[in-house]
Amino acid sequence: MYRTETDGLGSVEIPLEAAYGSQTHRAIENFPISGVAINHYPEIVKSLAMVKKACALSNAALGALTEAKCKTIVEVCDEIIDGKHHEYFVLDMLQGGAGTSTNMNANEVIANLGLQKMGRPFGDYSGLHPNDDVNCSQSTNDVYPTAIRLAVLQKSAGLVYAMENLVTAFKEKAEEFKHIKKVGRTQLQDAVPMKLGDEFMAFAVTLEEDIQRVQDLAKLLTEVNLGGTAIGTRINTPEGYQTLAVKQLCEVSGFDLKPAANLIEASSDLGAFIMFSGTLKRVASKLSKTCNDLRLLSSGPRAGLGEIILPAVQAGSSIMPGKINPVIPEVVNQVCYQTIGNDLVVTLAAEAGQLQLNAMEPVIIYKMMESIATMTNAMYVLADRCVSGIQADEKRCAELLDNSLVLATTLAPILGYEQASRIAKIALKDGLTIREAAAEHTNLAPEKVEQSLENAAV
Amino acid sequence: MYRTETDGLGSVEIPLEAAYGSQTHRAIENFPISGVAINHYPEIVKSLAMVKKACALSNAALGALTEAKCKTIVEVCDEIIDGKHHEYFVLDMLQGGAGTSTNMNANEVIANLGLQKMGRPFGDYSGLHPNDDVNCSQSTNDVYPTAIRLAVLQKSAGLVYAMENLVTAFKEKAEEFKHIKKVGRTQLQDAVPMKLGDEFMAFAVTLEEDIQRVQDLAKLLTEVNLGGTAIGTRINTPEGYQTLAVKQLCEVSGFDLKPAANLIEASSDLGAFIMFSGTLKRVASKLSKTCNDLRLLSSGPRAGLGEIILPAVQAGSSIMPGKINPVIPEVVNQVCYQTIGNDLVVTLAAEAGQLQLNAMEPVIIYKMMESIATMTNAMYVLADRCVSGIQADEKRCAELLDNSLVLATTLAPILGYEQASRIAKIALKDGLTIREAAAEHTNLAPEKVEQSLENAAV
Amino acid sequence: MYRTETDGLGSVEIPLEAAYGSQTHRAIENFPISGVAINHYPEIVKSLAMVKKACALSNAALGALTEAKCKTIVEVCDEIIDGKHHEYFVLDMLQGGAGTSTNMNANEVIANLGLQKMGRPFGDYSGLHPNDDVNCSQSTNDVYPTAIRLAVLQKSAGLVYAMENLVTAFKEKAEEFKHIKKVGRTQLQDAVPMKLGDEFMAFAVTLEEDIQRVQDLAKLLTEVNLGGTAIGTRINTPEGYQTLAVKQLCEVSGFDLKPAANLIEASSDLGAFIMFSGTLKRVASKLSKTCNDLRLLSSGPRAGLGEIILPAVQAGSSIMPGKINPVIPEVVNQVCYQTIGNDLVVTLAAEAGQLQLNAMEPVIIYKMMESIATMTNAMYVLADRCVSGIQADEKRCAELLDNSLVLATTLAPILGYEQASRIAKIALKDGLTIREAAAEHTNLAPEKVEQSLENAAV
Amino acid sequence: MYRTETDGLGSVEIPLEAAYGSQTHRAIENFPISGVAINHYPEIVKSLAMVKKACALSNAALGALTEAKCKTIVEVCDEIIDGKHHEYFVLDMLQGGAGTSTNMNANEVIANLGLQKMGRPFGDYSGLHPNDDVNCSQSTNDVYPTAIRLAVLQKSAGLVYAMENLVTAFKEKAEEFKHIKKVGRTQLQDAVPMKLGDEFMAFAVTLEEDIQRVQDLAKLLTEVNLGGTAIGTRINTPEGYQTLAVKQLCEVSGFDLKPAANLIEASSDLGAFIMFSGTLKRVASKLSKTCNDLRLLSSGPRAGLGEIILPAVQAGSSIMPGKINPVIPEVVNQVCYQTIGNDLVVTLAAEAGQLQLNAMEPVIIYKMMESIATMTNAMYVLADRCVSGIQADEKRCAELLDNSLVLATTLAPILGYEQASRIAKIALKDGLTIREAAAEHTNLAPEKVEQSLENAAV
Repeated sequence: MYRTETDGLGSVEIPLEAAYGSQTHRAIENFPISGVAINHYPEIVKSLAMVKKACALSNAALGALTEAKCKTIVEVCDEIIDGKHHEYFVLDMLQGGAGTSTNMNANEVIANLGLQKMGRPFGDYSGLHPNDDVNCSQSTNDVYPTAIRLAVLQKSAGLVYAMENLVTAFKEKAEEFKHIKKVGRTQLQDAVPMKLGDEFMAFAVTLEEDIQRVQDLAKLLTEVNLGGTAIGTRINTPEGYQTLAVKQLCEVSGFDLKPAANLIEASSDLGAFIMFSGTLKRVASKLSKTCNDLRLLSSGPRAGLGEIILPAVQAGSSIMPGKINPVIPEVVNQVCYQTIGNDLVVTLAAEAGQLQLNAMEPVIIYKMMESIATMTNAMYVLADRCVSGIQADEKRCAELLDNSLVLATTLAPILGYEQASRIAKIALKDGLTIREAAAEHTNLAPEKVEQSLENAAV
Repeated sequence: MYRTETDGLGSVEIPLEAAYGSQTHRAIENFPISGVAINHYPEIVKSLAMVKKACALSNAALGALTEAKCKTIVEVCDEIIDGKHHEYFVLDMLQGGAGTSTNMNANEVIANLGLQKMGRPFGDYSGLHPNDDVNCSQSTNDVYPTAIRLAVLQKSAGLVYAMENLVTAFKEKAEEFKHIKKVGRTQLQDAVPMKLGDEFMAFAVTLEEDIQRVQDLAKLLTEVNLGGTAIGTRINTPEGYQTLAVKQLCEVSGFDLKPAANLIEASSDLGAFIMFSGTLKRVASKLSKTCNDLRLLSSGPRAGLGEIILPAVQAGSSIMPGKINPVIPEVVNQVCYQTIGNDLVVTLAAEAGQLQLNAMEPVIIYKMMESIATMTNAMYVLADRCVSGIQADEKRCAELLDNSLVLATTLAPILGYEQASRIAKIALKDGLTIREAAAEHTNLAPEKVEQSLENAAV
Repeated sequence: MYRTETDGLGSVEIPLEAAYGSQTHRAIENFPISGVAINHYPEIVKSLAMVKKACALSNAALGALTEAKCKTIVEVCDEIIDGKHHEYFVLDMLQGGAGTSTNMNANEVIANLGLQKMGRPFGDYSGLHPNDDVNCSQSTNDVYPTAIRLAVLQKSAGLVYAMENLVTAFKEKAEEFKHIKKVGRTQLQDAVPMKLGDEFMAFAVTLEEDIQRVQDLAKLLTEVNLGGTAIGTRINTPEGYQTLAVKQLCEVSGFDLKPAANLIEASSDLGAFIMFSGTLKRVASKLSKTCNDLRLLSSGPRAGLGEIILPAVQAGSSIMPGKINPVIPEVVNQVCYQTIGNDLVVTLAAEAGQLQLNAMEPVIIYKMMESIATMTNAMYVLADRCVSGIQADEKRCAELLDNSLVLATTLAPILGYEQASRIAKIALKDGLTIREAAAEHTNLAPEKVEQSLENAAV
Repeated sequence: MYRTETDGLGSVEIPLEAAYGSQTHRAIENFPISGVAINHYPEIVKSLAMVKKACALSNAALGALTEAKCKTIVEVCDEIIDGKHHEYFVLDMLQGGAGTSTNMNANEVIANLGLQKMGRPFGDYSGLHPNDDVNCSQSTNDVYPTAIRLAVLQKSAGLVYAMENLVTAFKEKAEEFKHIKKVGRTQLQDAVPMKLGDEFMAFAVTLEEDIQRVQDLAKLLTEVNLGGTAIGTRINTPEGYQTLAVKQLCEVSGFDLKPAANLIEASSDLGAFIMFSGTLKRVASKLSKTCNDLRLLSSGPRAGLGEIILPAVQAGSSIMPGKINPVIPEVVNQVCYQTIGNDLVVTLAAEAGQLQLNAMEPVIIYKMMESIATMTNAMYVLADRCVSGIQADEKRCAELLDNSLVLATTLAPILGYEQASRIAKIALKDGLTIREAAAEHTNLAPEKVEQSLENAAV
């Protein structure tokens, strides 16, 4: 069953039960692209409702909207913020129009659900109009950029939890492994002694720093251009509206938002997204390195480094019986690659802004949400299904260390670099330990050698 | 309701109606990452079944599988190729394990559905075993790379149709606009005269060349490592199996596949994917440029170039009445950026191979399918909702051309470059046409000027 | 003429006058790659000398180096910091070994020049040893990462000057153009009125924010791992050395450096470089967008937007007389693309770290210096040869605005969105102005229309 | 000493001995960007001269240029092709203007050197004019794209030699190591047996395929738009010129060039560069993987895999005596990252074309030449200073294999996957070999086990 709605481009048939209207309907037909709808990311839908609510309250306070209409709009928005009605936000994440369709999706759904509350049928916009009322004093060009910033802020809070969870997992292992000495390696070559606990603490610390970066850079997203309308000149807004709207949005959203210093600049600038995406790329690069290390340290079980053992979470092979693979770090690597690729998409889209607007915002928010969501999922899986179950092979660590030549470095201060090099080479060539080679090929007193080797204790 | 399956890692509870088994179940739990399941891309599921069928036939022919088991496996595979049972292929596209879970998903589903045909319950693998029978003479490391190549080959056939459709749309406009003279521009500056039809023919030709590239480079994907098993040494395959399996797969799939020349190399090499993805990136780069041009040529309606008018497919603004935006080219631009970013993901993943395998194949096939699918969708939308409805503003084209200084170039051969430059400058400074400036500031006979200007006719 | 030096790998012939030694010599032969030597970026050479000086002072203070040797080392370092002896720093920027060769280049040059001051011949290392004395208490793995951070800090100071210069140029134009009304455009479509001065102020503001980001993110580079030696365990350093060395380096360099919180983590972490490079990418993305806008606004001279006129700095064409092209913005675009590509190189290299070290630092510093240097050059050229000479075509701006339909938006509050849309369409179709269409097709009082249009005044 | 030249923009002072003219001079001042001049890549300068020579011959044949002028131009061009006069090609590789400055640099130098041959002074262009004579029937927009294609074709021939040299080095090692059995690894886990020779043959084969790709894709660059002039409409060219000019250029250059099928499309299309750069990216991705493998296989010397030993080409550490690092593969990795980043630059620049031209060609040719040059250098170094000196540690390979569990796979066909998995787990847990575990925990006859294990022999 359908109802007919007419707009400037003609008439369209809309499913009777659909709370959206003609513009959403047209956009659904125009953008059958990715198959991922905006309600796949509930934070986006909720953020739109937060903005609409803040604007309605501001409009009513300034006399641009009746109290009655405002009350209705707010009621509907509150329900959306509570997670209701998201089924009407069906547009494709990949869309043209700089978010106009998404904004109109919100305007139409809120208008129709408001009409329903008033006892009026869907589409009877003389009672509550998507543009004149719900979108009052607004343009897509300030609503959408504001809403997607809010969405990223919400989503990244979840990322931070996942990061903290992973940091904790690494720290617990660092504590558990703090007594285990092993070979430290640079350039994949045996270097100097270290402790396995310190290696895991480095994994924790490097990620912990990333939490700080994520939180710092997220702050850039709190500067919003709400109130600037079409291009930042505040056209069609009442006096005092911008300040009030941002203030209201702070209350509605719980985030400490700030009005953009220069609204015209803010209308087209996506620098904050580039920076935040760049931060995600940093996290991805470092997390990928960490997973590479976990895979390397657990290589084997017998013909690899074999210093740690990852928990077996599934059979490793359809043909090789008993094989266990580092499947969790592997999937995390792939998520990291996706995040790095998505950062490029964000950069390309940000660069493509023209004059007073950037029309490519939809792909930016799409790819950023995808990166944050998959990174969050990946970090939980890594912490809970891999890191927390890692075991050390202490015997292997000790054997490799004892058999290694890494103690040569400690002899350099007493023998000089050149002599110490000579000893290391003899040891390698003749299959000796450093201790043995030093005894045979220098006239150092054995206790002096021992003392030096002691000093290398980590 | 659940049934219990036990494997080397212990027991798991599996939904009674699920045709998959313990390994798939574990993988579902291990990889809650992207939310996109492998059956989102039916080509992947079908390709797996094609490989399994070809292998079963080969195994039976070589005595490695009973005829009865082979028949059962083939029956199930044929149903999957026909689009049935895809609901059991529920694993996340992003997974660790180099595709082992996907391969086991296929093995388990085929085994269980085969058991069902035999009248035996799910999980009663003594009757038909996922590894020993369905995966007989196979390893994930040859099945999965072969299947994803097949999937890309199938998917890219659809892309080619979309490209051909778009080429046709551009060519029709080229024909329609072939008489319209306009200003040709280089570096956004007025250059020399051309025809609007030629401009649109260039859009068609550049895309038509891309079709050729897509088809050429897809051929690289027809070289498969099926029969190489774990690392290309053919371990656990009967004599003659590799040749036969590839031959069978040609028949089953309808593609002209070739056995890899060096199976060990082919086991870890993803060069063909890099090249094909690079080709998609080429298409994306050029298509994005084309969309940029469409948006530029249709800028206005009054304060831009305004030479062409894109069809209005939706209202352009929530605040600016009557505004119409180039929303279709805009969404295509974004799809192109995504494809360029995905190519980076493919590159990162391909570079991350280690020794005898590349464990990052799942993200490669995921991002390639995403790119192909969205590019295909985007091109249909562009052809059908934009290009086919483009109108030329002939009056505007003529006005801009007549008013321009682009005819100065035609005077260079008779006046010399320096004199012609002087005339162009005078015309610009004094608001004259080239014809007027030549008349006033040279002693060329008017008919000589006219003749030169005629020569510029395109 | 050559001298012979012998090291653990045998003997090499070194040009008699070369102050470097065998390890540098071997590295020259090993790395004939890019043709760009480290002394192409003097900041790198100076930074190395600063580190060496700070370490020597610290070693002497802690008794690890004689006062005499320290004094000699410091003298040589001071000369290098003053710009002398850079001709001996000839290694290729692209090198393996994680910077060992660069560090040894510094060690050998300082040792030999020190020997020279002592009246001893080059190569007589018993008097002053590259490893045992100049490199005392150091490893490449703390010296090199510290030195390249210092180099970026120095180089980025110059970038900031260039950015400030460009901001000033834009601001002067913003002031000059502040009275000129024009059409504001979104998605390349005529949107609402604005002022040309505001458009230029947006260029200034967006770049000014980038200065803040560059300065903020550069701070991450002030955390150094000096004193950690090989892998962060401080092996072969005297008690108290780390704290003292960083303190000395603050004095020597004038930068407010901080010791890394976790030395093991800091030895392999390149997160600060990823972030800083990401910031350069942000600047590049936004600057490229700005240049795109300058080229678009100056398109024409007659068949484009033509609102501004860029200064003619060279002839635009070898065939088209009188053509002037936006060559300066074009070269800036290209520099921006290079910076975006270089950021990818940095990311790839950072991700490639393994275990206790990242061996790919040389390409990171190479590409970062290249980006900073070319961005700096490009911004000066843009400011001084383009922006400062931009003229507005006031007449053109006014004509386009008067002729446009952008005033329709101001009628929406009084007519409602739908009626205003109807008026805009009629105007476009019938070739009317909004004022005319409103007069003919609504029953609004003319003075009401005028008042609305007034309100749009920006 | 200076001479004065006057052009449309005024007068400039040019060094007396400089063979270039005012346009080159202005461009030098406009583009102080990268510090890399076009003569850094002699192939570019030579290619320009080849094009100029071919055009002069065609013009003379068609009566557009006097025989005398043609002869002079050809003489000068021949000298440039022979490597002379390159010192006058001093423009920065990074330049605006779509190559106009580079084309004018060639036009001016050829004109002046021609004048010199005529006994006339530099700058006396009435005798031989840069635009009217040297550039006759040409535009930068066909000359430059043609010349840079020729330059890449020349440069890539050198790359192919380097690739062939590296393939040979790997093949020699494959032969040398063909008898050495070792553990094959997937996902860094011990998998199944293989031979070290086969591993090296895979390195050879994968690179050999790349040679084929490089040669195939280079063919795309042989399609040139010479004769299209400004935008492909052949404005200002005599009848028959295009065909003749391309034919002459084939003879002059020795390459089998083809005229572009659609000149308007060809004027702005850079698809062939994207594809060729994408091919370089493929080579880089695969070569980087190969170097990663070399570093991994040579890790140790004692606490790593240690299956191969790379030749020691320099000391590995300033602090760790005797350490030897895989510095050659490391530098190759970095070159590969640079190439991948450069491919992104090419893509960005190619996408930035607008309407009838792409103004970003200079950065495309710059980065492509850089990639080809450094990849060429890196491959020679890798072959000659690393691969050719690699030694196998046969004892280590055998120990790791004997001690491993990789033979479990061969038991699967006789025991079934599940039983074989159980045996593998027991062996791992109890420290047994597969042979021992099979003897103790199955009732297989020992000779049956032996026979299976034999079958795994590779």
